Amino acid sequence: MAVTAACWPPGFSSAGIPCGIKGGGALDLGLLVADQAVTWAGVFTRNGAAAPCVQWNRRALGSQARALVVNSGNANACTGEAGIDAVALTATAVGEIVGCEPAEVLVASTGPIGKPLEVDRVTSALPAAARCLGAETEPFSAAILTTDTATKLSAAKAGSARVVGVAKGAAMLAPNMATLLGFLCTDATVDPVELQSMLSRSVDSTFNRICVDGCESTNDMVLCFTTGQVAADHSAFASALQEVCESLAQQIARDAEGATRLVRINVTGAADDATAASLGRAVASSALWRAAVHGADPNWGRVVAALGAADRGLDLSRLSVSVGEESLFTSGEPVGAMGKARAALDSDEVVVTCELGGGRGTAEVLSSDLSPEYVALNAFVTT
Amino acid sequence: MAVTAACWPPGFSSAGIPCGIKGGGALDLGLLVADQAVTWAGVFTRNGAAAPCVQWNRRALGSQARALVVNSGNANACTGEAGIDAVALTATAVGEIVGCEPAEVLVASTGPIGKPLEVDRVTSALPAAARCLGAETEPFSAAILTTDTATKLSAAKAGSARVVGVAKGAAMLAPNMATLLGFLCTDATVDPVELQSMLSRSVDSTFNRICVDGCESTNDMVLCFTTGQVAADHSAFASALQEVCESLAQQIARDAEGATRLVRINVTGAADDATAASLGRAVASSALWRAAVHGADPNWGRVVAALGAADRGLDLSRLSVSVGEESLFTSGEPVGAMGKARAALDSDEVVVTCELGGGRGTAEVLSSDLSPEYVALNAFVTT
Repeated sequence: MAVTAACWPPGFSSAGIPCGIKGGGALDLGLLVADQAVTWAGVFTRNGAAAPCVQWNRRALGSQARALVVNSGNANACTGEAGIDAVALTATAVGEIVGCEPAEVLVASTGPIGKPLEVDRVTSALPAAARCLGAETEPFSAAILTTDTATKLSAAKAGSARVVGVAKGAAMLAPNMATLLGFLCTDATVDPVELQSMLSRSVDSTFNRICVDGCESTNDMVLCFTTGQVAADHSAFASALQEVCESLAQQIARDAEGATRLVRINVTGAADDATAASLGRAVASSALWRAAVHGADPNWGRVVAALGAADRGLDLSRLSVSVGEESLFTSGEPVGAMGKARAALDSDEVVVTCELGGGRGTAEVLSSDLSPEYVALNAFVTT
Repeated sequence: MAVTAACWPPGFSSAGIPCGIKGGGALDLGLLVADQAVTWAGVFTRNGAAAPCVQWNRRALGSQARALVVNSGNANACTGEAGIDAVALTATAVGEIVGCEPAEVLVASTGPIGKPLEVDRVTSALPAAARCLGAETEPFSAAILTTDTATKLSAAKAGSARVVGVAKGAAMLAPNMATLLGFLCTDATVDPVELQSMLSRSVDSTFNRICVDGCESTNDMVLCFTTGQVAADHSAFASALQEVCESLAQQIARDAEGATRLVRINVTGAADDATAASLGRAVASSALWRAAVHGADPNWGRVVAALGAADRGLDLSRLSVSVGEESLFTSGEPVGAMGKARAALDSDEVVVTCELGGGRGTAEVLSSDLSPEYVALNAFVTT
């Protein structure tokens, strides 16, 4: 059940202010504080060059948290010893303001990799951020963005309990644990171990099914905090969590850098769900197919080539590919007509279905088109 | 030793004419004929949606060949039963003209996938092609191109024996067996089994080290024919073969769709050569890094993120990355200055070096930059 995402559940407050990393007065520092120490769960990028903040949070898994601090405009990744120190300094500064141990503070960063973080900008802006804390999600959800063009918010209810989440995406979007930032708060009563497994499951079928440019980030994480104050039915809570993750994942894919269309790649008839997801990602990663989608060209041969590259044993004679409602390739034979597919591609949401004619595995992967703007944005601006 | 590539070795002749597939009088039919049946070796795409011509040639491996027919403008891939028939019809027509069995005719196609091949255009143009046969490589090498902007030719000598090769690339360029078309002719005496293993080895370290857009084609093949008329030292011949493959691979990467720079990604210090090549391909496949190269932006963080995505156990503290002569990241620390790297990127050939600080494995992967033109070419034109 969808609810307004304008406010956090009771017990959480947040702020978003400019601290000068991005410059020009842009919001780039987010602070999320819980009134009391809360249970949390998290999933993180598996990138071998994971940022110091990812490593800091991973070490804190299993303990309780009071606050989360996020800066945008700098990933603080591959920044050597200074980058590691910056995370500890930030957590310490937040701890002093909030009144908790540094270990109870989680840290996230997003932006260009390899630029030394001006940590003084963060620490000196923290008192101002603390003064701005409020129940609204908006300033915080804006402060975590990079090249995103819109904030990403979603909320759902599980009985009386609420789940509210915010996220950022934009680029370097490929699946593994969570290629982006996502922060969820709830007041539902849920066992910490259960929360971790529910979050992992939801992320796997939502955020991890986004594949925009095949570039996996060093800074991805999805965190879920709960005050545990409101009793909630287990399956209702799982559904609410899933609903929020799904909505945020779609918002991210739709607002990917340079994207003009959300592309849903549905793979069916695979040996199992994992195989279906991996084939879906192969199609989603095809620069040629994504460029064709941008031009509304139903060049389904590029879909088949991507499937064949990922599956050496692909049985063409059982494969069917359709775009929208129109079948383009059926059981190994091209169909010919493509007018309806062209029209289906020329819209802001496109569904591509690949039926492999094998097992019962299915998956949907979320992607976008590839536009000249994506290239220009990443060629001439350091993001 | 480099020699002119203007003519084939004695015993081979070729032609390139328009047959109407591309239209507008563009050359799109190539015919290569050997005076006698010759030994040949071949490597092929491993794509699970491999085209009927790839399957036809694979079946002929181990026997001798008299002719090769190539059409551009249509890949004849994913074209169902009609596509399979088209290959047999083409081989039969060539056999009748040349005076050999259909099984002695090899077939290659390149162009858009999934479009029915108008095989009558091929078969009815074959007599004209046969009348044009000559020793020059040029019309044939032009007839096999798609969106390539230039023909690709290379030649080398092994004593008195010659190796002459032509190739086409353009897009859907990612390594596996051989993502492109390459045709080599020689007159060197070489055992058929040896020829196959030498060709496989050379392709693996040259054509298979091209990674431009990560899209593996359904139609790739590299074939090498030999009359066996000229005695050649084994290692001199291997060197000549390698030299021709190397040169063609570089010409392909340099002329990739939309490319403005050839990018050489050198990975050193890996556990073994195969690991080094796989990490080099990961960097080469990063759309974000390739876009940065297009803008001459030394955004080395994208290189590290790509390495970390491919190697979960990446040891950042031993990793160094340089562009041109300038080191940008050394043993886990960013260096800061980037002026020379920017200048090095702003040229038509760029060298990126990733030293992992581990084992002795090394590899060079050939790539290009990603330009808005690549996207536009593949969005608004069906290639």
